[in-house]
Order: sequence, then C-alpha cells, then structure tokens
Amino acid sequence: MNRRDLLNAPVRHMELKPNMTVNQLIQQFDNAGSFGAGRLATACNIFENMVRDEKCTVFLALAGAVVPAGLRSIIADLIRKRLIDALVSTGANMIHDLIEAQGGHHYKGHWFVDDFFLYKYHINRIYDIFVPEEDFVKADKVLIEMFDEIAKEKQGRILSTNELMRLIGSRLKDPKSIVRAACEANVPIFLPAMRDSEFAYVHIVHAERGKKEKALLVDSFKEAAEMVAVAQKSERLGMIVIGGGVPRNAVQHAALMADKGLDYALIITTDRPEYGGLSGSTPEETISWGKLKKEAGRVMVIGDAMIIFPLTVAAVLERLGEDFQRKGNP
Amino acid sequence: MNRRDLLNAPVRHMELKPNMTVNQLIQQFDNAGSFGAGRLATACNIFENMVRDEKCTVFLALAGAVVPAGLRSIIADLIRKRLIDALVSTGANMIHDLIEAQGGHHYKGHWFVDDFFLYKYHINRIYDIFVPEEDFVKADKVLIEMFDEIAKEKQGRILSTNELMRLIGSRLKDPKSIVRAACEANVPIFLPAMRDSEFAYVHIVHAERGKKEKALLVDSFKEAAEMVAVAQKSERLGMIVIGGGVPRNAVQHAALMADKGLDYALIITTDRPEYGGLSGSTPEETISWGKLKKEAGRVMVIGDAMIIFPLTVAAVLERLGEDFQRKGNP
Amino acid sequence: MNRRDLLNAPVRHMELKPNMTVNQLIQQFDNAGSFGAGRLATACNIFENMVRDEKCTVFLALAGAVVPAGLRSIIADLIRKRLIDALVSTGANMIHDLIEAQGGHHYKGHWFVDDFFLYKYHINRIYDIFVPEEDFVKADKVLIEMFDEIAKEKQGRILSTNELMRLIGSRLKDPKSIVRAACEANVPIFLPAMRDSEFAYVHIVHAERGKKEKALLVDSFKEAAEMVAVAQKSERLGMIVIGGGVPRNAVQHAALMADKGLDYALIITTDRPEYGGLSGSTPEETISWGKLKKEAGRVMVIGDAMIIFPLTVAAVLERLGEDFQRKGNP
Amino acid sequence: MNRRDLLNAPVRHMELKPNMTVNQLIQQFDNAGSFGAGRLATACNIFENMVRDEKCTVFLALAGAVVPAGLRSIIADLIRKRLIDALVSTGANMIHDLIEAQGGHHYKGHWFVDDFFLYKYHINRIYDIFVPEEDFVKADKVLIEMFDEIAKEKQGRILSTNELMRLIGSRLKDPKSIVRAACEANVPIFLPAMRDSEFAYVHIVHAERGKKEKALLVDSFKEAAEMVAVAQKSERLGMIVIGGGVPRNAVQHAALMADKGLDYALIITTDRPEYGGLSGSTPEETISWGKLKKEAGRVMVIGDAMIIFPLTVAAVLERLGEDFQRKGNP
Repeated sequence: MNRRDLLNAPVRHMELKPNMTVNQLIQQFDNAGSFGAGRLATACNIFENMVRDEKCTVFLALAGAVVPAGLRSIIADLIRKRLIDALVSTGANMIHDLIEAQGGHHYKGHWFVDDFFLYKYHINRIYDIFVPEEDFVKADKVLIEMFDEIAKEKQGRILSTNELMRLIGSRLKDPKSIVRAACEANVPIFLPAMRDSEFAYVHIVHAERGKKEKALLVDSFKEAAEMVAVAQKSERLGMIVIGGGVPRNAVQHAALMADKGLDYALIITTDRPEYGGLSGSTPEETISWGKLKKEAGRVMVIGDAMIIFPLTVAAVLERLGEDFQRKGNP
Repeated sequence: MNRRDLLNAPVRHMELKPNMTVNQLIQQFDNAGSFGAGRLATACNIFENMVRDEKCTVFLALAGAVVPAGLRSIIADLIRKRLIDALVSTGANMIHDLIEAQGGHHYKGHWFVDDFFLYKYHINRIYDIFVPEEDFVKADKVLIEMFDEIAKEKQGRILSTNELMRLIGSRLKDPKSIVRAACEANVPIFLPAMRDSEFAYVHIVHAERGKKEKALLVDSFKEAAEMVAVAQKSERLGMIVIGGGVPRNAVQHAALMADKGLDYALIITTDRPEYGGLSGSTPEETISWGKLKKEAGRVMVIGDAMIIFPLTVAAVLERLGEDFQRKGNP
Repeated sequence: MNRRDLLNAPVRHMELKPNMTVNQLIQQFDNAGSFGAGRLATACNIFENMVRDEKCTVFLALAGAVVPAGLRSIIADLIRKRLIDALVSTGANMIHDLIEAQGGHHYKGHWFVDDFFLYKYHINRIYDIFVPEEDFVKADKVLIEMFDEIAKEKQGRILSTNELMRLIGSRLKDPKSIVRAACEANVPIFLPAMRDSEFAYVHIVHAERGKKEKALLVDSFKEAAEMVAVAQKSERLGMIVIGGGVPRNAVQHAALMADKGLDYALIITTDRPEYGGLSGSTPEETISWGKLKKEAGRVMVIGDAMIIFPLTVAAVLERLGEDFQRKGNP
Repeated sequence: MNRRDLLNAPVRHMELKPNMTVNQLIQQFDNAGSFGAGRLATACNIFENMVRDEKCTVFLALAGAVVPAGLRSIIADLIRKRLIDALVSTGANMIHDLIEAQGGHHYKGHWFVDDFFLYKYHINRIYDIFVPEEDFVKADKVLIEMFDEIAKEKQGRILSTNELMRLIGSRLKDPKSIVRAACEANVPIFLPAMRDSEFAYVHIVHAERGKKEKALLVDSFKEAAEMVAVAQKSERLGMIVIGGGVPRNAVQHAALMADKGLDYALIITTDRPEYGGLSGSTPEETISWGKLKKEAGRVMVIGDAMIIFPLTVAAVLERLGEDFQRKGNP
C-alpha cells in the first residue's frame, strides 16, 4: 500500500441541524468515520446488508437485561418483520417477556438505594429497574400450569428449548410478547442456558407437584442439533449480538458445526478483548476459529446496547422504508 | 454517625521491601485500604473466612477462558484441598481441561496477528493464546468414545451435567485434571450451559453414529434441582465468582431456590453495573433479590482474574499454612 | 418512602418507526428510562435546561481527540449559537483545529496497522485516524510566526492562555475554526495544560530563534484567576464534560474558588469511579467538595462521546428550533 | 513464520504455595503468560531492565489519586533509590503529598454515602477516601506563606514548575514527603498542569494579599524546555505511566522534541484505546508518532494501579536485592 492510499479519506466533520432523522445523523457519523461513530455507522451498513440479503438467516443473540429495560417491542417488531430469523437468548430475557405477558411490569427505579430496604419490600433490583416480587409470582403460576399442561399433552416426549418456547408462545394472548411473536412468525427461540433462570424454579415446582417421572423433559443437547440444522439449511448466516455470553457463543458454534462461517457479524458489547473472555473477543479472533468468514462484514460497537441497538434499528428501518417486509429464512 | 467516626482510619501508606511474601503485600494493601487495593485485601479476608467456616459450602463459579490461560492447576488444587465444594462452570473451561488431559496444550501466542493466517494453519485464538485444532480433535475423539460407552452403560438413564462430568472424571488418567480431581474429591461440577461448548459437537457425532434414540440424554433441568439440594443441605453458603455470566447466576439462583441467601460473596470481574447485566451487578443488588444476605461478607474486585485470583489464593494459602486440609461440605 | 412510590413509573418499551427524528428517538429512550438510555434522555433534558437558562454560563470541558475525530463543526456551531459560553480544552484539540485551519486534514485510517510502517511514512495515528506529519509542520510554521508577531506586539506583557488563543483566533481565516469562532463570539478558550501539546514545540522554536528574553510569556496561573472571575460574574454555572481530565477539574475548581457550586453538570465519559481518578468520579462525589450543588441537574453518560455528544446536541437543537440564538453569559 | 514457531511455548499452569514471595508469584504469571498475568510479568521484566540500564533516564508519569490512596511511601522510596529519575505529575498528587507533609491525613471511607452529608461535614470524597477540609486549609496556609517567601526571595524571576517544586521541597521537614525526597535526590518534578489544582487557589490568595505584580510568576512553557533538555542529555529514555493523561503525554512529547524515542514504556491504566484518547492509546500507536522506538520494551497493563504498581515494584525490588542503589540519570 502506498502512502497516498492511506490518506485518501479525510474525516468530514459532522454537521447537525434541527429535526434531522436518525439515519441522517448516522450519515454524519459515517462522514466522520472515527472511533465509536465510525463503528456505529458501519454497524448500520452491516445490519442493512444482512436484512437486504434474501438468502441470509439472521440470528439475534441476546444477553443482558435488555428486555426488562425497554427493548421488548423493538425485538418483537423485528421478529414480525422477519428482520430476525432466529432468537438465541438467556432464559431471563424470555422470563421478563412472559412477566409482562401476564400483566406484570418493570419499573423505573434508581441504582442508589438501600437494597435491604428493597428486599423487605419484595422489590428486586436490576441496576435502575425495579421488579416487584408479585409479578414474578404471577408469571410463575401461569408457567407452572403451562408446564403441567404441556407435560400431559406431550407425555414422555423429549423437548428442545425451542419446542418448549413455541408451545408456550402459542398459549400467550399478549400481542406485544416476543415469545408469541416468534411463535406466530415461525421464528425459533433457542435458550442454551434455559435452566439458568426462573424456568428452573418453574420446572422444580412443576416436577414436585406432579409425578417426577412425568415431568417435562428438556434435552440439553437437542436445541444444539436444531441450531446446526438451521445453519445447514441456510445459504448465508448473519449474527447480531447484544452483550455476548452463551447466546453469542451458541450462534458461532452452530455456524462452525454446520461447516459454514458467518457472513455478517454485528456485535454490541461493553466487554473488551484483553481479559480473554468470549463476550469481549473481536470479530477477527472469531475468524481464526472458522466461525466467521474472512470476508464477512463485521463490526464491534462498544457501548450500551440500550442506546446503540435502537439507534441502529431506527436508522435501518428508515433505509428500508415503511412497508419493508422480509420473507425470512432459511 | 458523627464526623469523628468518618475520620478514624487514616490511610497508612504501603511500604514495600524485597522478598516480601504475597500475604505481606496484601497486608500493605489493607493498610492503604483504598480503591482496588482495599477491595483486594477485603477479598482475601472473605475468602479466608469462607474456608475457615466449617459449615460453609463454597461454590466456585467460573466463566471466561481462565483454564486455557493458566489457572488449571490452581483450581484442581483448591478442589483437592476442598477449599471449594462445588464447581459451576462454562462448558468450555471443562473442555479445555479435557484437552490437556488428553495430552493437548494451549500455547502462548499474540493478539496482534492475522487471524485468517491462523485459520489456514488450523490454530484457534483466544486473545493471546493459541490452541491447535488437532488438540481439539484428539479430545473430541476420546470424548465421543466416552459418550458411547457411558450411553451403553447407563442405557436410557437421564443424566444431569454433574453426573456426566463425574462419569468422565472417573475415566481420566491425568492427575492434574480438574474434572478428575473433582471426581476424586467428590466435588460436583455443574455445567448450566453445557451444550454451549465442544460438548455439543461431541454429542452430535455420538448421537449420529449410534442410534439416535440410544444417545446419551442430559436433562437441562436436573442439575438445577441438584444444586438446590446441595444448597438446602448446607448450613452456610459461599460463592467465589470469576467473570460472572451463567455460572454466577446459577449459584445465586440455587441459593434463592433453597430459601437461603449466600453468606459470603467474592466476585472478580471486569464488568460494571451501569449496563444492567448480571455479570457486572453489585453484591448489593444481589441483596434485593434475597440471593445474598444483608450481613454477608461481600466484595467485588474489578480486574483481570488471571492476576486477582492467584493473588487472593496465594495470600489465603499463606494464612492457612502448609498443612491445611478442609473437610468439605455439605 | 412507601412501596407504591417505588413502583409508579413503569418502563414503557421503546417503539421505533422509519424516519423518526433524533429527538423522537430520545423520547423513546425517556419512555424506557433505564440503563444508558435513561441517562442519555436525562442528559438531553439537562442540556436543554442549561441553555434555556438565560443566567447560566455554560462551560464545555474537552478532553480526548474529539476534534480530529469529527466534532469540530459541532463545537464551532455551539459557540456561534452561544450554547457554550466558555471552552476549556486540552491543548491538543486546539492544535488539531489549527491544523485544519491551515488546510491540513485528518484521515480515516485503521487501528489494525503496523505502526512502524506508519512512522516511516510520517503518518501519526490516533486510534483509527491518520494525521500526516506535513500537516503538523504546516500548522507549526504558521503558529511560530504568529508567536513571533504576538511577542513583538505585546512585548513584555504576560499573557494567559485565553488571551493568547484570542490573539491567534483573530488571525485565522478559516470560518470553520473553533478558535476563530470563539474569538468572534467572544467566548474564552482556557487551556489549563496548554504546554502539554504541540504548542510547547511551537514555543520552543519561537523562543530559540528569537531572543529568549523576548519570547512570549504565558503565565501558568493567570487563566485560573480569569476562570474564577467568569464564575464570579455568573449567576448560574453549567458544565458539559467530554472525557474529563484536566479540563473537567479546572471547571469544577473555578466553581469552587468562586464560592459557587455548579448548577448543571452533564458528563460524557468512558471512565469509571472505582479507580479513584477524577475523570471517572460521579457527579455525586463532586457534591461532597462543594463543586456541584446538591440540587443540581446532573448526569453521567457512559459511552463514546463521538456518539453520545452529537446525539445530545441534535436532540436539543430540535427542541430549541431552527432560529434559536442564545445571548450568552456572563 | 511457520506453524511450529507459533506453537512452541505452552502455557505452563501456575502453581501456588504458601509463603511464596511476590516475585515467585510473578514467575508463575510468566509461566502462564496469558491475558493480564502475562502482561504483568512482562511489566516486571521491563521495569527491571529499565532500572538496570545505567544510561536510562526513568520518568514516572502520575495521574489519578494514587498519592492520597496509599502510594506515597512507595514513590518517595523509588525516588530515594533513584529507580526514578524524574517525576511528571498532576498538581493534585503533589498537593496531597503536601497535605500529609503538614500533618494532614487521608481517611479510609466509603463510596456509598450521602455526599451532601459529607459536604455539610466539610469532608471531601475521593471515591472511598475522605479528606477533611481542615487538612486542605492547613496545607494552603503553609503553601501561601511559602509562595510569599519565595516570591520575595526570587523577585521578578520567572520560575518553572520544577524550580518551584524544588523550592517548596527544600522547605519541608517531613522525611516521608515525595516533594522533599525529590529535592534531596535531585529528581525534578514537572507539573504540566500545575494550575489545575489547589496550587491555583494558593496562588490566587498569595497574589491578592501581596501586590499583584510581585506575585510569583510561573511560566507555562519553561518546564517543557527543561524536560526536553533532560531528554536530550539522556542516552536512553524510560517511561512508567500510572493512569495517563497530561503527565503521560508530556513525557512522550519531551522524547519526541528531543528527537529521541522512548526505549522503555510500562503503562498501567484502566483506559482503552477504542475511544481515541491518549490515556488509553497503545504503546504501538505511540510508535507511529516516533515517541516510542520500534524495538522498545513496552507493555500496557490494564488494571487498578493501586494493585498493579505495588506488585510490580515489590517484584523488582526482590530481583534487585536489598542493597541496590541506582546512580541516577541523566
């Protein structure tokens, strides 16, 4: 590379004006092209390319308490528009969707409080969100009954997390629910650590009050095979990561086991690579494993997903236009 | 509180001298008592109290690539001395233990490399560690055979992750293996996201080459009930967290489901609370949920576990003395 | 506080639609009100209140390479509209403004490069920005001449950094320059660590080629007294911080020395409080010093200023409307 | 490079034993060689090489509240042993040294407090340290008198920050003071942002109560020229950075202006490169500017300096032996 090639794209300073749209702002970020602004602009481009690619199966990997914090509708909408073809999540995020589906709420609270005071008041804190105990209890009750019912219906059948989520989704009435939207849009929900959430409590109560040997049986590994099958059927693979952790790893692993690498990767995280954990690992590191293709569109945006993800989605919705509806894959 | 009470403990400046022991350095950190140094000194005190408490069941929750990076022997030793009573881990950390148990290695590499070059060379990168593909393959081969053998032996029995890990541990010859040490010391290993690791690949190959219906069946929820049972049988509960994620959450959840709160919590992480994720949540937040007792000894040390954890262990080993051997719980 | 008061503001999930304006998106962040989204919504409210407050003198404290990275026009515009009444900056940011004022540029580059290769090519790297050596040289040349000229003009007078910046600003032709805009709008520029930048090189060459005793003399402490005087003349004080460091500290210190606390504080940073540094310290900590009033509107947004600051400004410009022009203070 | 070269240094897992010395622990970190442990081991090697290099002038660049937090004695000792040849600091760290030199203290406090309560009690908070207002007042009083005295003595002479610090150091009685130790050991103290600290308040009172034109005059740029002169006289240059900010930049700039690059760089920080600020910039980035030599020993340890710096110093003191005394440079 010669020197001139290194110096051919001057930073164009951002210009702001009143009433600019989100995508117009992102264009200004693209003009500057530096630090986080440059990464975010690239993220929007990758997300746009991913969903405009008719042959790409888009996975959303979800960790962190983003559903309680306010991303529930955005995710449900993405599923309905099929901008997302598969959801891979922590169990907790789905539990919080189900809490709202049963009429529960999450409340704006504060991080600077006496937590023992909250404990006595039966209020659970997630940073600056408060969740009243009774809303958990309400959701538990409904879920335990659903588990009983499903166990009876499917007697002896061994389920994957995805199959179980679909059976739950089909029983939900709340039109805003992610789990219901996924069921209706035929979007699978994989929960690679399902048992690490209130679902475990629900299962324990369900198993104890019925006959243990008739309890719902969820096979740890079944969903892994299902995810690989999805990847195998797909021509191209895209991944959007919020947070990282088990959901990100599960998607990357499915791509590898299907003998394919991901073609697009958009990672939003606050973790950094230097400590060696998966959540902070760069897309480049992922290439060494064969989980991401060398030529893949890829970017890691470092920042709070509650800001970065809605920004990205809003900009891309603007680019796609009002009536855009994706067909979905695979 | 009156003013004098707020001003009664002056920072005593650290004094260093050649040949000081690790614990002598930690005492200097205690003298200063500020920022990270104060937290680390507190961490050593809490870890010491936890293991000197004969009635406390100590959980080690393990996330991040700390086994490949060099903590394998330390963890195996802690298990043998029963300073740890239960291990809750990502699947990957156990896979990396098993890779070394089959003669494989992890190599000191570098983060500033061309990852596609590594890919062509079949070298997988974990930040600045290189893992050759063939060491995965070697471990896979042995594990697939073990899965076949165990499936045959246990035909039709539904296993928990812990039961499976014990069956694997009993087949290992490497005296340095964590999985083998746990088996011998009767320390359970829970893998709440087992399928999110090379174990999934192993299971898929095992299931495909045998008859699918005879494949090993690992119940997602069974280990959750086992963890709750451990917690219920314990008088007191302690938790040491490296990283956070699913393993931390699983321990906290078990404490809650057993209707107990944790009595001790030592958390080493690089994550921060402001983004709302579990890994960065403060011990105080955990109190609001009833997962940690109000009066629990607790601290969160922010830093690289590869530095902080060995420091803490070395200081506590020094305090406990050469011949300390714990009985173990519950 | 009773329980009901803690649970009176449910998180309202964000709703996105194509073509929404930046401020409409911020309203959605306000609806959710959690984690970073809640903080950013608060930041916009505080910024709006600050500039709508006719009696408030607004300081912008600037650290980090935000001028090279693309915020130059935004800052110059804020000065022209007098949404900012005083600029407190690292020397480097002003140097980079002056580089562009002399026709130099900053270029979009990449962080993953061989830095010795860049060195040989005389390209300086700021993360993913490239700055060619010759653009420094060009600016140096002009600045050295200005220093010579000013020294002659002011012979023997002792200058503050602010006086010097104004004398430079009055000599600039580039209408986009921050330094020129500040001069024209009568907005002072304070550089509490001016000598820690290319200005030091400029001064050394200037002093060596002339007679040393006739070199420009900038008094370290003079600008401190000037900043205190500004604070004393102001009815209310507001502070917007990008990054932190010396500029933030200098503003806070001026507020204290003027026996006033700040009335508004909006801090954008990626630093965290636990390590004890000033840049990461919370607005609350600032209250203990009397530098921030107890009742002050305050928020700390954790994130990349290249994203957060333009977002905030764009939302507030929308709220203020096309023709808003502030009178300015004190 | 062939594949074998990439796989020639297996991670050797750390082995801990009771009573191991700090340097023995660091050796274990070196054996593992990964993530933060590897970096810290490298840091010790670089620090050792730097001080064993008889021709190397070692700069310590100091930002963040490490003197109040407990590093005062360590830094004073390093100066006395001449492991450090020049100190470049924020003004605040020197103020806190002077507070203790006048009998004041810093107190172990807590970060989770009501800051307005502290304010009413005249207690200033630095994360979890409390500093009583009266200890500032006591130090101010002495410093104002020193300023008066020095101004009289030096009438009309223009001082650099370093000259002023030496004049203060020669007046101190506390044998533990950094400023006094530096004066005695003939180690310069440069304060590139001196005015951004309590020194500004001291100067303002001093100037107002005397005749303004007779006030002490500190030239902003004079110390820059002095630092360049030190660098020019030195055969080799080393830099140890705690935190970053203006002190790090000032050292790097001096190396550049002396037409030399640094030969050694050990950086301890919690900042990261992605946001483009100087404090988080990698040593590699520094090479592009010519501020660090291509072949320089260099490392960036990410972590709390209150832990990392004492660890490094203790290990190196052990390597150097009890009686090691360096001659000092330049």
